[in-house]
Amino acid sequence: MKDIQSQEDHRRINIKKVGVKTISYPVTVLDKAKSRQQTIATVNMYVNLPHHFKGTHMSRFVEILNQFHGAIDLRNFQTILEEMKERLQAEASHMEIEFPFFLDNGRTRESLHVHRYRCMMCGSLDEEPDLEFRINVPIYLPVSRQQVAALPRSTGRWGQASISVRFTVFMWIEDLILAIENRITREIERVAENDVTELSVEVVTRNIGECLSEMEEVRSYSVRVENLCDAYSTFAMMAS
Amino acid sequence: MKDIQSQEDHRRINIKKVGVKTISYPVTVLDKAKSRQQTIATVNMYVNLPHHFKGTHMSRFVEILNQFHGAIDLRNFQTILEEMKERLQAEASHMEIEFPFFLDNGRTRESLHVHRYRCMMCGSLDEEPDLEFRINVPIYLPVSRQQVAALPRSTGRWGQASISVRFTVFMWIEDLILAIENRITREIERVAENDVTELSVEVVTRNIGECLSEMEEVRSYSVRVENLCDAYSTFAMMAS
Amino acid sequence: MKDIQSQEDHRRINIKKVGVKTISYPVTVLDKAKSRQQTIATVNMYVNLPHHFKGTHMSRFVEILNQFHGAIDLRNFQTILEEMKERLQAEASHMEIEFPFFLDNGRTRESLHVHRYRCMMCGSLDEEPDLEFRINVPIYLPVSRQQVAALPRSTGRWGQASISVRFTVFMWIEDLILAIENRITREIERVAENDVTELSVEVVTRNIGECLSEMEEVRSYSVRVENLCDAYSTFAMMAS
Amino acid sequence: MKDIQSQEDHRRINIKKVGVKTISYPVTVLDKAKSRQQTIATVNMYVNLPHHFKGTHMSRFVEILNQFHGAIDLRNFQTILEEMKERLQAEASHMEIEFPFFLDNGRTRESLHVHRYRCMMCGSLDEEPDLEFRINVPIYLPVSRQQVAALPRSTGRWGQASISVRFTVFMWIEDLILAIENRITREIERVAENDVTELSVEVVTRNIGECLSEMEEVRSYSVRVENLCDAYSTFAMMAS
Repeated sequence: MKDIQSQEDHRRINIKKVGVKTISYPVTVLDKAKSRQQTIATVNMYVNLPHHFKGTHMSRFVEILNQFHGAIDLRNFQTILEEMKERLQAEASHMEIEFPFFLDNGRTRESLHVHRYRCMMCGSLDEEPDLEFRINVPIYLPVSRQQVAALPRSTGRWGQASISVRFTVFMWIEDLILAIENRITREIERVAENDVTELSVEVVTRNIGECLSEMEEVRSYSVRVENLCDAYSTFAMMAS
Repeated sequence: MKDIQSQEDHRRINIKKVGVKTISYPVTVLDKAKSRQQTIATVNMYVNLPHHFKGTHMSRFVEILNQFHGAIDLRNFQTILEEMKERLQAEASHMEIEFPFFLDNGRTRESLHVHRYRCMMCGSLDEEPDLEFRINVPIYLPVSRQQVAALPRSTGRWGQASISVRFTVFMWIEDLILAIENRITREIERVAENDVTELSVEVVTRNIGECLSEMEEVRSYSVRVENLCDAYSTFAMMAS
Repeated sequence: MKDIQSQEDHRRINIKKVGVKTISYPVTVLDKAKSRQQTIATVNMYVNLPHHFKGTHMSRFVEILNQFHGAIDLRNFQTILEEMKERLQAEASHMEIEFPFFLDNGRTRESLHVHRYRCMMCGSLDEEPDLEFRINVPIYLPVSRQQVAALPRSTGRWGQASISVRFTVFMWIEDLILAIENRITREIERVAENDVTELSVEVVTRNIGECLSEMEEVRSYSVRVENLCDAYSTFAMMAS
Repeated sequence: MKDIQSQEDHRRINIKKVGVKTISYPVTVLDKAKSRQQTIATVNMYVNLPHHFKGTHMSRFVEILNQFHGAIDLRNFQTILEEMKERLQAEASHMEIEFPFFLDNGRTRESLHVHRYRCMMCGSLDEEPDLEFRINVPIYLPVSRQQVAALPRSTGRWGQASISVRFTVFMWIEDLILAIENRITREIERVAENDVTELSVEVVTRNIGECLSEMEEVRSYSVRVENLCDAYSTFAMMAS
């Protein structure tokens, strides 16, 4: 027989999250080269809902968004989270903003000067604040002279790395991207010289893991590498 | 200065997951009415990778899939997980299969007889086995006579509930769907009679939570309800 | 028996289109209120390929994009098309840019101030130039006092209109959006007053068609209206 | 000044298409090997709407789907189109069904035995019947011994061909797939032997075009080839 007491517990249980999601909004992010980069974010905002509240005021999330109109950047992320806690009388507030970040690495005339990276900031204000940064780094194979001779097509998109990081200090998005891309490039070159080894998701994952664990700005991380161009997609994942 | 010791720890860290993903495969699921329902699954398979292994044999995942060709159903889910652990010499194996499940609830001539529900089975074989079942239940508003008089369009898709359940005993997918849908329908009728209240994501979440906590077959659950037809999407989430 | 002559014809047949697609690029569009709006475009560029050419130089598309870096707007659309024809020695050039356009219609404190519209410019330079503008306008149901009393949820997303227009003279995107939205709002109000009629995809399509045919700036158009919140999606389409 | 007469013309203009879309439905397709293959289709159904009708009966589309429940296959495609014309009193009826088709080409133990191809049947019953078949064929690069020695990863997904065909006589989907895949494989092998040439979207498009123009079963066709694994996606298109 089912215990009636526990049913009552269930009914009294708190709603963990309540909020709005996938709101499209123009935002500004800090950019090492140009100091401000305008991009377009998808925003999720939510709070916890104490059990003595019947529901939350969804429109207040939108009011807060309107209030910071045109200037949601990483500096006032925490201010917005505090505003959410106060206006919605919640114990915890959360905000996720996802946006494409463009990096101008135009060195050659023929390759695309502007590269796009999908980024996400996930912030929480519970007992203490928490901020996680996620980025997708596409992985391409380079063309070397011997490779062109041997193969129909040796360049091109190989896969992607999905990286999640908590920082100890501020770090430019550009610096994180370049550190990871340089590490992957060195590994691809090393593998290409050596006939036997293949570039695998395991090898790329371990390399990025090592790279992140050597950075002083990084407190903790997780890495997931996917090979998208294989006959069947393969992946590997690790975390600090 | 960074501690070299901890870097070595990082390098020795295990790769948590390695495997294949989004393989499209025809599968058979058990179906209360017809006993077997043929559908199409998207399959992810992965294992942990101990630190003394350089990489895993990705093709072995595919060999195992081929071996159970045409007969991956919920009964041999655990057999496949055991085969994965053994063939890939892993300590833990995981499989996720996502598939549309069709339910024939054809009572009226005019409404669609066959309804589609997105399902997912997530199984693990670590120290002990774990099996989680996830299902998406679309929520529609009904048409009553008064409503038609008052409003341009009062019926239609309102949102969806994403439910995740661990069972104590076997339960038919149909029985779970019908229990949840009946509860939602009763709540919508109750709200519709009462002028003041609005149907909110919080109310629907709490109703589904109560419904699941009253089922003997359900050991634990989480519920997430989204209103997709609002000016901005809203959602609420709770878990036992 | 198959005619060998016609096979040779097939082999000599021109490749109609060759190019690059889904390149993500930051662009600037003209904006009535602020004069310039920064957004993010997805760009497709292609040319015809005469049969005496074996292939085209794909990197030249990227060179042209780089050359107009940061300043692809509607004024230099034709200049880019001419550059493509010349640099790729083609008889016809085509460019499609798709981008979200944000309109600030913040009148109330509670509703979202910034609305997003998916836009697309499709330009061709064949014997004569052609420019088509496409826009998606989401359709929402309003809340009136009586409706709130009668129904659990009477507001919310109802569907969307996909409109394609060729202009006779320049027209602001804002003016096109407002004209269509005002027409839809008037029709929804008219239908809401009248108990019998329902708001249907046919009615909305005909209203938008009438609205566009009355605009002097519009040379030709097509309209497709979808109801996304129905039990099964319905749509209607018309063209001038 | 705008001519009032022409506005009235616009108001009398016919709605070209009205119907239901993206209905998910289990269907059966004919299969050379097993004679029947169960799969899951996404169905669109629509008719023209004469100007003296205010709207159409959307539920009748669903009634027709229910009537052929469980047995929508390519043989009764035309029967369904006739039923639509009659029941909806329309001059033209259209149906599109999109479905994954699985082909078992299990020759090796290590590669996936079951391959998935996205197919679409587009049928119309206007003055005369028309039936178009579309299929997406993924293109993979093979591994040869020399390639493995020279390159980190030489195998894997290269791109896809989207083929649209009108037939003169019945043809098995399997036979069409195998003819195209064999042609692509021969071309890739030819290119791989020759150091200079690269495999390009133009070359693959022309090869598939030649292959289709040599088939007696094919009355007309169009081909679009995309390279999805390049630094920026490239494509080429041709039609008979």
